[in-house]
Formats: sequence, C-alpha cells, structure tokens
Amino acid sequence: MRNKEKETILLGHGSGGRLTHELIRDVFLEKLANPVLGFLGDSGILPETEGRIAITTDSFVVSPLFFAGGDIGTLAVNGTVNDLAVSGAIPKYLSLGAIIEEGFPVADLKRIVSSIARSAEESGVIVVAGDTKVVERGKGDGLFLSMSGTGIMRNGYPPQRPPGPGDSVIVSGPVGDHGAVILASRAHLETADSFGSDCAAVTSLVQALFDEGIVPRFMRDPTRGGLAGVLCDLAQDTSAGVEVMEQHVPVKPEVETICNITGVDPLYLACEGRVVAVVDSSQSDRAVDVWKRSGAGDGAACIGKLTDNERGRVIIRTRYGGARHLMRLTSEILPRIC
Amino acid sequence: MRNKEKETILLGHGSGGRLTHELIRDVFLEKLANPVLGFLGDSGILPETEGRIAITTDSFVVSPLFFAGGDIGTLAVNGTVNDLAVSGAIPKYLSLGAIIEEGFPVADLKRIVSSIARSAEESGVIVVAGDTKVVERGKGDGLFLSMSGTGIMRNGYPPQRPPGPGDSVIVSGPVGDHGAVILASRAHLETADSFGSDCAAVTSLVQALFDEGIVPRFMRDPTRGGLAGVLCDLAQDTSAGVEVMEQHVPVKPEVETICNITGVDPLYLACEGRVVAVVDSSQSDRAVDVWKRSGAGDGAACIGKLTDNERGRVIIRTRYGGARHLMRLTSEILPRIC
Repeated sequence: MRNKEKETILLGHGSGGRLTHELIRDVFLEKLANPVLGFLGDSGILPETEGRIAITTDSFVVSPLFFAGGDIGTLAVNGTVNDLAVSGAIPKYLSLGAIIEEGFPVADLKRIVSSIARSAEESGVIVVAGDTKVVERGKGDGLFLSMSGTGIMRNGYPPQRPPGPGDSVIVSGPVGDHGAVILASRAHLETADSFGSDCAAVTSLVQALFDEGIVPRFMRDPTRGGLAGVLCDLAQDTSAGVEVMEQHVPVKPEVETICNITGVDPLYLACEGRVVAVVDSSQSDRAVDVWKRSGAGDGAACIGKLTDNERGRVIIRTRYGGARHLMRLTSEILPRIC
Repeated sequence: MRNKEKETILLGHGSGGRLTHELIRDVFLEKLANPVLGFLGDSGILPETEGRIAITTDSFVVSPLFFAGGDIGTLAVNGTVNDLAVSGAIPKYLSLGAIIEEGFPVADLKRIVSSIARSAEESGVIVVAGDTKVVERGKGDGLFLSMSGTGIMRNGYPPQRPPGPGDSVIVSGPVGDHGAVILASRAHLETADSFGSDCAAVTSLVQALFDEGIVPRFMRDPTRGGLAGVLCDLAQDTSAGVEVMEQHVPVKPEVETICNITGVDPLYLACEGRVVAVVDSSQSDRAVDVWKRSGAGDGAACIGKLTDNERGRVIIRTRYGGARHLMRLTSEILPRIC
C-alpha cells in the first residue's frame, strides 16, 4: 500500500486529507517552496506592490506531456510569463492548479514540477498559490495544468500612439517550431536531435527593446493559431491592412520539411518563445538588430508593414510575386498544442 | 454544420481560430464583459491598486456539474472568493480557465457562465482574464474550471497575536450541507426540495466581524476535508489542543439523515459557504450574535476552544460524555466534491 502510494496518484491524493498533504509537501513544496506560497486553498500574500497590475490565465492540455525541447511544465510557465511580457508587464507571480488523473505516475509529476521550478527561476517569477485535484481513471488525460500570472505594468505602456499604417511588423525568430514538434510527434516522424520546441520566456526580448528606447506599439506571442492568427487580430484590431512578405518570414528547414510532409502551413503553427511586434518603421532595423544581438532573437526579421490598403485584412506577398489573403483558422488542425 | 456548432463543443472551439473567437464572444463575453477583461492570452490590466495583494487558485472538477443549490460555476466563484475572504482579503478580481470536453452541450456551458456572472456580481468581483481549451471526447469529463482570485488585504491582518489556548472556535452555520448534497446525488437518495448546497460567498460574514471590531485570529472555509480538516490544521499550525463539543456543532437534520444512511461522519463533509474562526473568548458570544443577525449566519455557534492539553491534536467531547481524537481524513470518502 505505502509503496503503491509512492508510485502512482490515487483518488485519495485529492481528498484534502493526509495523502493530499503528503503530495503537496513531497512533490510540490519540495521544488516550489518560497516564503509567499500558499497551497490547498490558502492565499499567497504578496509583498507591497506599486503600479498597475496585469493578470493573465491559461489552461494547458498539451499532448504528449513531454516533447522535444520541453514539457507541459515549461510550457505552462513560459506561456504565462509570455502573455504578461507581451502585455507590457514585468512577470512576477504565478499560481498553479493541477488536475491529475488517477494512476498518473508520481515520477512524471515530479519531473514536471521540476520543470516548473526551473522555468520559473529562469524567468525570475515565483509560484505563490497552488491547488491539486484528482479525477478518476478515464475522466482526464494524465495531467492538465492551469497557470495564472500576475505582473507589474511598465510605466507608459501601452503607448498612446496605437499601431497604424506605415508601421513595421517584426518577429523575433523562426515561426512554427513548437507546432511542428507536436505535429511530428503525433505523426511519428523522426526529427533531428537538435530540433525541438522554441518553448522559452520572451521577457529578455521585450526588455531588450525597452532598454534601447524602442516602445513597441503592439506585441503578441503567436501561440495557438500561429503567426497568422496574430496578424489577423492585428488587422482586425487596428482596422489597418497588414502586408507580409512571405520570403521574409523565418521558418526553419526542419519545420518546412514537416509542413511539406503533412500539408500544414507553418504560418498557422504555434510558437511558444517568439514575439511579434509592431514598431515605428524608423526603428524596425534597429529593433531587429537588438533582438539578434540579444541571443534569444538570432533569427529575428522584419516581415511586413501596416498599410492603408485592404483595411482589416492580411495580405501575403508570395515569393513568386503573387498575393493571397491570409484567413483566420476556422477549425482545428492540431488539437491540444498547448 | 452551423447548427451543430451551436449545439455542442467541437475540437475547433479550442483552435484559437474563428470558432474559438465565436465561443468567447457568444458564451463568455456575452455574460462576463467588463472594461478590464482580456481573453485568449491577453492580460487584464487592473486599475491602480494600493496595499498588499492576496492571490489564490483552485481547480474545480465537481461531479455532477449541476446540483441542488448550485453548479460548478457558482462553486468556482464562491470557492475562490471565500479563499480570499478567510485570508483577510477583500476579493476583487477573478481569472477563469475552462477545459471543455468535445461534445459538451453549449446550452450547459451558457448556463454555467451565467452562474459565474451572477455569483461574481453578488460578490462584487469581476472576471479580468480567461482562457478556454477543448480536449477530445473521453479525455475529460464535461467541464473542468480553474479559477484564480486576487484581493486586497485588510490593514492589520493577519493580526499580531496568533490563535492560542483560551481562544474560542466558532462556526458560521451548519456543516456538511454541500458534501451531503453531492453524496445524496451520487447515492440517488431523494432529498427535500428545500435542501441544497450551502454554496455561497462568506464575504458578508467576514465583513460583519470586522465591522464590529472583532478581528479573528484564524479564519478558514471548511471545504475538502470538512470541519475536521480545518480543526486538524488549526491544531497542527498553532501547536495548541483543539477541544470541540459535539453537541454544539450545528448539523442540519437532512445532513444527519444522509450521513446515517451512508455511514459518513458530517464533520468530514465539505461546506462551501461557512467560516470557521478563532476569536478571543471574551468576544465569542458577540461574534456568534453578529453572525446570527447578519442573515448569512443564522445557524452560527461556538463549538469549542483552544487548550493547553493534547497539544497539536483535536478532541471531540461526545454528547454522551465520552471523548475521541479527530483525525485527518487519510483516503477519499467522496471524490470530486468541488
């Protein structure tokens, strides 16, 4: 009995009783402990803060839980940190909910909690509240995580001048890596050991722009829906046209190969460590250069501009001189990407 | 196709594309819209705040989703609001994550989102961030919610003087209603129409104490693990003994009946709208009186005290003059109570 308890998650681990306390102590607090952290319905009480606060939340249902370049834990931390960073906030605090399926291996849970701890440390954030629930075998799928994040908004952000015609659209690196990794794993395609998800925090990329005095007029991380989804949102929100040069959009050869085999457009594949930004056209070369020098943005590029034409729509100029409208994804090409 | 889309949740509703946007607009924003709310990875940016911030998080996996006196939506809002309230915070902001199983009826989702909107309004909180994910049929169980809450701590709380021997333990009403409702529903027991979950916000109960100048030394809402779990935590955290008079613990006759039939002890059944507090013994009669007058605490009672004996343990004095130790629940008597 005791041995079994240590190996897989039991319904009793969700009772709020002794097993729950042991699970929290031995698996979660073991890796995540800090002076603020409250678990089991307790609140984490933050030190006094100044400024406007940004709050974001995400649920993570990625399948498989472990993939080349990361796991559901790294994805949850970086996904949440990135939502705050592109909103113009400095990420500070996370809260973590875990919905675990009965029978889930405790060793896997420990590995994922270690990833959460490591990713949080790399991003300078701490987990201040947590909760665990257990559902019966067959009523979940191993592990779902929910992660909320709290950050402090940068002064003067968002900027008064919204994005508009004439502005440049830049991206911090090749697109679609994360989506391609999940796609390859589902299709049982073999990929090079060196190729993995781009899953990472984008905080240093955002900071690098502000350090150079470049205040982006729009920032987003292109996750579900990919680059295409962000560009469609941009066109819709600004009522400007968005014109993108296909050959300027960076895509890794591995991603192109996976897309060619599976017939998927890389513009719709999720990234988990990239930023799309709109900057004044006079600053776009410098912004790309800053990103390239920062290390995290090796593959940065200016991919297009906002225009007065085709307002509210996205136009892709293909490498052969043609043009097509880029539409928002309607249905699902790849469920449970994050 | 269009008709089907309106009836049940499809995997495409989780794509981040057009269906996701429609789901968010027609189901979530329809009921929850406010000037701060960000969805789909956007952050909600709060107005300037002052003071210490408290953060809490919970996942909700209750089964069945609808029960006498509430549903998973009322439970999620009140559970989160209550965690903040008993931590001494004024609840302000919620963030909501939904993990929906493919095939879930859209009408049920709308009903639950309406409950969330109504409960939030009753508690004076707003939803500032949200996210939806869809998992394949058979990989979830209808709907799981995650809810995080942000509140502003009351000045001077927690109090300098921690709970200790001599203090009184009070409870704001009968215990075990929520657990008994779920238990009866699972056991297909018929109950009176008038009997339902106690699911409600406890903010007015907490406020009533502070309004009277009564600063509790400890507050908790006895959810998973029931009153017994809270008392065990109290004994452990304070290293005092906790002595409870069984006949003073309020239990509704319906709950006693359900417990007698099923062989479950009501002290272990979850409440979702009660507060257990520790107050100076000189204030306990007044505190109970304040609660009774407040409307939300009709059945309030002083149930015991902290002692120098049996330190770290909970003793129940039975109505027949005996005594027994109350232990923390080890395994699960009732999975997915919340």
